[in-house]
Amino acid sequence: MSKWNRETVRVHYKDTDQMGVVHHANYVRWFEIGRTEWLRAAGLAYRRMESLGLLLPVIDLQVNYQQPAKYDDVIAVFAKVSEVSAVRLRFDYEVRKVDEQKETDIGSERTKVPLNGQRLASGSTLHIWVKPNWRPTRINKAAPEIYQQLKYD
Amino acid sequence: MSKWNRETVRVHYKDTDQMGVVHHANYVRWFEIGRTEWLRAAGLAYRRMESLGLLLPVIDLQVNYQQPAKYDDVIAVFAKVSEVSAVRLRFDYEVRKVDEQKETDIGSERTKVPLNGQRLASGSTLHIWVKPNWRPTRINKAAPEIYQQLKYD
Amino acid sequence: MSKWNRETVRVHYKDTDQMGVVHHANYVRWFEIGRTEWLRAAGLAYRRMESLGLLLPVIDLQVNYQQPAKYDDVIAVFAKVSEVSAVRLRFDYEVRKVDEQKETDIGSERTKVPLNGQRLASGSTLHIWVKPNWRPTRINKAAPEIYQQLKYD
Amino acid sequence: MSKWNRETVRVHYKDTDQMGVVHHANYVRWFEIGRTEWLRAAGLAYRRMESLGLLLPVIDLQVNYQQPAKYDDVIAVFAKVSEVSAVRLRFDYEVRKVDEQKETDIGSERTKVPLNGQRLASGSTLHIWVKPNWRPTRINKAAPEIYQQLKYD
Repeated sequence: MSKWNRETVRVHYKDTDQMGVVHHANYVRWFEIGRTEWLRAAGLAYRRMESLGLLLPVIDLQVNYQQPAKYDDVIAVFAKVSEVSAVRLRFDYEVRKVDEQKETDIGSERTKVPLNGQRLASGSTLHIWVKPNWRPTRINKAAPEIYQQLKYD
Repeated sequence: MSKWNRETVRVHYKDTDQMGVVHHANYVRWFEIGRTEWLRAAGLAYRRMESLGLLLPVIDLQVNYQQPAKYDDVIAVFAKVSEVSAVRLRFDYEVRKVDEQKETDIGSERTKVPLNGQRLASGSTLHIWVKPNWRPTRINKAAPEIYQQLKYD
Repeated sequence: MSKWNRETVRVHYKDTDQMGVVHHANYVRWFEIGRTEWLRAAGLAYRRMESLGLLLPVIDLQVNYQQPAKYDDVIAVFAKVSEVSAVRLRFDYEVRKVDEQKETDIGSERTKVPLNGQRLASGSTLHIWVKPNWRPTRINKAAPEIYQQLKYD
Repeated sequence: MSKWNRETVRVHYKDTDQMGVVHHANYVRWFEIGRTEWLRAAGLAYRRMESLGLLLPVIDLQVNYQQPAKYDDVIAVFAKVSEVSAVRLRFDYEVRKVDEQKETDIGSERTKVPLNGQRLASGSTLHIWVKPNWRPTRINKAAPEIYQQLKYD
């Protein structure tokens, strides 16, 4: 089981809707930020994978919403890899509201520390490895060092 | 089981990402368009529900992506109610690519006709009825005529 | 001076923010819809231009906001070409609220009829012709038939 | 003339389009982040203004695009107040690409230091002070301490 990456974001006006809460589609965007930064922290920047001719589209998405995020909240997006195979990769996520006063800076960290703050939503995304022509590929063949890193990180 | 509402949309540049396909978060927005237009076609415009002090936030979201939508595609968003109770409402969705030449106009229709086009994604959203203070409410008590309409439509 | 293209769109929840109005960035997206459909109506679908190795990025944007668009409004996005040269192209826009009852269907039309509805915003975008490497190009050399069409349409 | 606030953001997949660059509407969102953080750094958090019954909608927007931002770039959004009157407020912006290696953390700072990095775009927004009913108001009457702070900060 991999470690959580923790990325903090501020809720802006553009993220809210007229119910006065963050629009539910924006959590999907936060998930993307979470997994991108998990990968970067693991030395697997998405840009590097693209240069190897590897894409990682989402084939399944699940989100469970518990409490709404609101304007100006400071949100911690936790992401980690939860399943690795030769053809697929799964990420899990928790979106939590954290105490602004305790955040020294808004940014990224990768950590073993427990999840902090109040949980607002959780979810997961399932991905497959494809080539630029969208044909599936086996990551253990196409880029064995990436597979090893994901498998044993 | 309710009828499908069918709403067509055009894919624009703003909907794509640099993989050359529609960004996966946009399907969540299409689902919203689908259920809003289903409700409108049923005489249950969301604006009317808001005036009754009823909100319908998403508490669970699932999307399964089969084929990517691409720039300039004409997309049919099919939506229907699939589960009705006093406290919850579920919508099902299918996102399909349709033949632009056969579409006389891009807009909304509610129909019993079979799903047409090539399926790109499917999914569902689960909602609860809440009051403006986000406290859950029972729709059969709060607005029995809406409950009846959803239940037997 | 070219004719206005008129494209109608419905305001959805995702378009609003917690001021209860459409977020100002969304007018920029409506402008994009407007010019894309103007070009399509003129037989100059953006996809066709891309296949000729021509891109048309925005280099300047102006928007003047007069009245806010609101949830569930039906909006007519008027767009037309207002300036054509060998290297640049300018579009003008008007965003207007129209009477839902008088709209038989929501979609696209290109017309000489006067602008209808209540004006909410106006603006313009200036574009340059570039090749896929983002180097500027002269459209009268690169695709003289497109230049002629834009110049004398 | 006020000081620049500098806010850094990372370009994510969701921000790009199929030209492989950041979609031009996203700069408008970056401007919003820039002015929100300028106001927060000045002790004028937007949430506080809302609690005083003051809204600050955009009535005019200008953006000049010089170079495209790309996937994974680290972007510095510079914002400052450039014009203060009893009824209006103007912000100026510069969007710049900065060197990722020199950024110790991604976040906010308010500074007198010169603009750094490579300029990608510049622009401004003009705002009016309105009450929740969208009627214009004079900030020097409605909240003189805010007016003083903006005027002489």
